[in-house]
Amino acid sequence: MDTKITLNESEMPTQWYNIIPDLPEPPPPVLHPGTHEPIGPADLAPLFPMALIMQEVSQDSYIDIPDEVLDVYRLWRPSPLFRAHRLEKALDTPARIYYKYEGVSPAGSHKPNTSVPQAFYNAQEGVKKLTTETGAGQWGSALAFACAIFGLGCEVWQVSASYDLKPYRKIMMETWGATVHPSPSDLTASGRAILEADPNSPGSLGIAISEAVEVAAQDPDTKYALGSVLNHVLMHQTIIGEEALKQLAKVGESPDLLVGCTGGGSNFGGLSFPFIREKMKGNMDPTIRCVEPAACPSLTKGEYRYDFGDTAGMTPLVKMHTLGHDFVPDPIHAGGLRYHGMAPLVSHIYELGLVEAEAIHQKECFDAGVLFARTEGILPAPEPTHAIAAAVREAERCKETGEEKVILTALCGHGHFDLRSYEAYLAGELVDYDYPEEKVAAAMERVPVIAG
Amino acid sequence: MDTKITLNESEMPTQWYNIIPDLPEPPPPVLHPGTHEPIGPADLAPLFPMALIMQEVSQDSYIDIPDEVLDVYRLWRPSPLFRAHRLEKALDTPARIYYKYEGVSPAGSHKPNTSVPQAFYNAQEGVKKLTTETGAGQWGSALAFACAIFGLGCEVWQVSASYDLKPYRKIMMETWGATVHPSPSDLTASGRAILEADPNSPGSLGIAISEAVEVAAQDPDTKYALGSVLNHVLMHQTIIGEEALKQLAKVGESPDLLVGCTGGGSNFGGLSFPFIREKMKGNMDPTIRCVEPAACPSLTKGEYRYDFGDTAGMTPLVKMHTLGHDFVPDPIHAGGLRYHGMAPLVSHIYELGLVEAEAIHQKECFDAGVLFARTEGILPAPEPTHAIAAAVREAERCKETGEEKVILTALCGHGHFDLRSYEAYLAGELVDYDYPEEKVAAAMERVPVIAG
Repeated sequence: MDTKITLNESEMPTQWYNIIPDLPEPPPPVLHPGTHEPIGPADLAPLFPMALIMQEVSQDSYIDIPDEVLDVYRLWRPSPLFRAHRLEKALDTPARIYYKYEGVSPAGSHKPNTSVPQAFYNAQEGVKKLTTETGAGQWGSALAFACAIFGLGCEVWQVSASYDLKPYRKIMMETWGATVHPSPSDLTASGRAILEADPNSPGSLGIAISEAVEVAAQDPDTKYALGSVLNHVLMHQTIIGEEALKQLAKVGESPDLLVGCTGGGSNFGGLSFPFIREKMKGNMDPTIRCVEPAACPSLTKGEYRYDFGDTAGMTPLVKMHTLGHDFVPDPIHAGGLRYHGMAPLVSHIYELGLVEAEAIHQKECFDAGVLFARTEGILPAPEPTHAIAAAVREAERCKETGEEKVILTALCGHGHFDLRSYEAYLAGELVDYDYPEEKVAAAMERVPVIAG
Repeated sequence: MDTKITLNESEMPTQWYNIIPDLPEPPPPVLHPGTHEPIGPADLAPLFPMALIMQEVSQDSYIDIPDEVLDVYRLWRPSPLFRAHRLEKALDTPARIYYKYEGVSPAGSHKPNTSVPQAFYNAQEGVKKLTTETGAGQWGSALAFACAIFGLGCEVWQVSASYDLKPYRKIMMETWGATVHPSPSDLTASGRAILEADPNSPGSLGIAISEAVEVAAQDPDTKYALGSVLNHVLMHQTIIGEEALKQLAKVGESPDLLVGCTGGGSNFGGLSFPFIREKMKGNMDPTIRCVEPAACPSLTKGEYRYDFGDTAGMTPLVKMHTLGHDFVPDPIHAGGLRYHGMAPLVSHIYELGLVEAEAIHQKECFDAGVLFARTEGILPAPEPTHAIAAAVREAERCKETGEEKVILTALCGHGHFDLRSYEAYLAGELVDYDYPEEKVAAAMERVPVIAG
C-alpha cells in the first residue's frame, strides 16, 4: 500500500519553473510609487541582489538551482507525498486524497524553499546581513535558518503582539543566530514615529516591513528579503509542484482537483504552477482552486487593481486583487493568510481563468484540521487547514456522486507553534468573522487611482 | 553528494529484533515485589495485553510487525539517515558523522515506534482505554497519537509542574483526543494521599505512574502503557537500528562508533541492538557508547542491583543500574533522561561488556545542540544533544589523530517544545549540576535488599 511516496536525491528537480513566458498574456508591469511609470531593475537594487532582481523579471522558463542551494535543500527535500488513506476512510469517500508535506523542513514550513536561495544569492554578492519582517514567525524562522547556513547576519522585526504571544518562534530564530526586535521598535524612524503616537502599539506587518526596509536601504552591506508575493519567491516554491508531478506519476495518478491555501500566494503558486503548465500543454485537465479565509478574501471579494504591497505605502505599486493596503483583517488563527492582497502573478492567472477560488470560515477549517490530525497524525498549521477543508468538501461531494476523483493538496507546514489556536478550538472559543464589507470599502477608498 | 539516505516503503523492515536469545547469558529474572520470586505472565495480565506480555518474555530472535502497525509506521517510516556534512565542516574533522532522525514522526520523537504497536495489540484484545504517565510530554503525545489511530481512549497523568510549564504538549495530546490530568490528581487514591499531605505538590513521574497504574488495574477494559524500560518497548524500537544498517550499507559505510543518549534506554536500545547483533556475529566491530547526563548517571555511577521501577515502589523488582528508586535528579533540561534507573536489558548488556558509557554535563550538550542547529538546520531536543555532544567529542579527537572514523548517532526527537531550554542556554542561565553523591547514597539505603 503506497502511503508515503518518496523520491531519492537523484530524482530531485534541479530547475525552478518560471510560468511567466508560458502564459497567454504577460502580467501587468510594476509601477514606481511616485511616477506611476514601470520600474526597472535599478529601482530594486538598494533592496535586493541583482541575481534575484533578474529572476524577478526573467523570461526564461527554467532557471537552474545552484548546487549550493541543492545541497541545503537535501536536508529536507525531496519532501514526501502522502496518500491520505485514513482520512479517506474516515470520510467514507471514493476520492483519493494526496498531500505534499512541506513541514519536514527545519523551520517547519515551505518557506525555506525560498529563504535558502535568497540567502545564497545575497551571500554570493557580498551582502553581510538580511533584514525582514515576520508576523506569526514562520518566515522569520525560515530566513534565520538560511542565514545561519550561509553565514549571514539576520535581523527580524516581529510584529509586537506576536513577539509577546509566540515566544517560541522568537527563541527558534535566536537559536539560529538571528536578532529579533519587537515592532514597532525605537531602532528606526518609522518605528519611533509610531511609538510617539502610541507607546503601546501592538504593531502590524506593514509597520514591520517599513522598519526592515528602512534599515536595509541605509546600509550597502545589508539587503531586505521577502517571503511571498514576488515572482522570484513563487518561482523558488515551484520545486513543490515539480516533485509532486513526479511522485504522482510514480503511482500512476493524475489530479482532478488541486487545492491550496492562499495568503501571499507562494505556497499555492509553488504547488500549482507546474500543474498549470501541464494543463496549458494539454497533458492533464485538473481544476485548480485557491482557498482563502472568509475573513480576508482577497481573490473572491477584492478588486483587481494597482495597490501598495505594504500598509504604509512605501513599496512599488502592483496590480493584484486587494482589499486595500491598510485593511486590517480580523484576528483569525491562520496568521499567514491575513495579507491584504494577493501575489500579482496568482492574481493575473486568476484573471486569465486558469484557476478558481473559494473562501472558508475558520471553524470549518479547524474541524478539518483536527480530523486530519486524528487520522493522518500530522498536526497541520492553521493556514493549510483551509486547503484540507476544501479537500474534505470535495471528498464529501464525491461520496454523494460516487466519483473517484484524485485530489491533491499541499500541507505547507505543521502546527507545533500554533497549539494555542487548537486550544481555543477545542474549548469552543473560536469565532467565525463575517466579511467586513464596510471596513474593506473604506480601505478601498484609500487605494491610489492610477491614470490610463 | 549523499546527504539524506532514504529507504522506500518496500525496504522497510517487517520484523522487530529481540536481542535476548542472542546474548551470551540471559538477563536476570524480574521479581515479585512481595515474594521476591520470579514473576510469570499472569502477574502482568491486569496491566498489559497478553500479546505484549509474550513479547516481553519471548525467546524468538525476530517478531513479525503486524500489517496494521506497518501501515501506521508508513506515515513517517522509513525515517531518514543523514550525513552531517555541514557539522563535519564546522568541526574541521576527518570523521564522517551520520544521524538517524526520528523527529519526523507525528509526535516528533522515536516514541511512536512503540506506542503504535502497544495501542494496536491492546485494541486487538478488546481493550477500550489506555492510561499512562508523562513527564515532559513526549511519551504522552506518542500514546495519544496511537490511541487516536486505533480508536482507543487515552488518559494521561502529566507531572503537575510540566502540565503548567509545557502547555503545548498538553494541547497536542488533547488535539489527538486524549484526556490529560495534572498529577497528583484527586481522581485516584494515590493522588489524593499526596494532595492531602501537600495540596501544592508539583508531582513526580513516580506519582503519575502510581495514578495511571491504579486506574488501569481497577477497570478490566482499561490497561496501562509504558514508554521505555521494558523489553518489548526496546524491541519495538529496533526498527531504528535495522533501517540504519540498511542505509549505511547503501553508502558502503560501517560504523566505528555508535553513540546514543540513555534515559530509560529505549532510544539507545533501538539504535544499537541490531548493531550489537552484527558485532556479536563478527560482521563489524564498532564501539557502542551510552551517553547519559552527569546529573543522573545511572550507568556510570549507579549500582547494578534489584530495585523498583517507580518511586512509590509499586512495580516488580528489576535488576538494573540504579541511583535509588526515590532519587530525584536535579532539574536538567533533558527531562527524558531523568529516570533513576536504566532498562534492565541495557544494564545487562553493559555488564556483559558489549557497550560502554560516558556522562556529559548539560552546557556542553547545549553547545553541541546549537552548533548542530546552525549547521544541520534541525533543532534537537535536549535529550539527543547528549549524543551529539559525544559525537562532537569523538570528531574532535579524530581531528587530532587524523582518523576517518564513521560515527553514527540517533537524533531521537526535535526540540520544538523545548525552546524555553534554548532560551535559558542563550541567556547564559544554564547551570551544570555536580553529581549529587550524598543524595544518591541516601536513596540507595532505601533500595530493598534481595536475598540470595
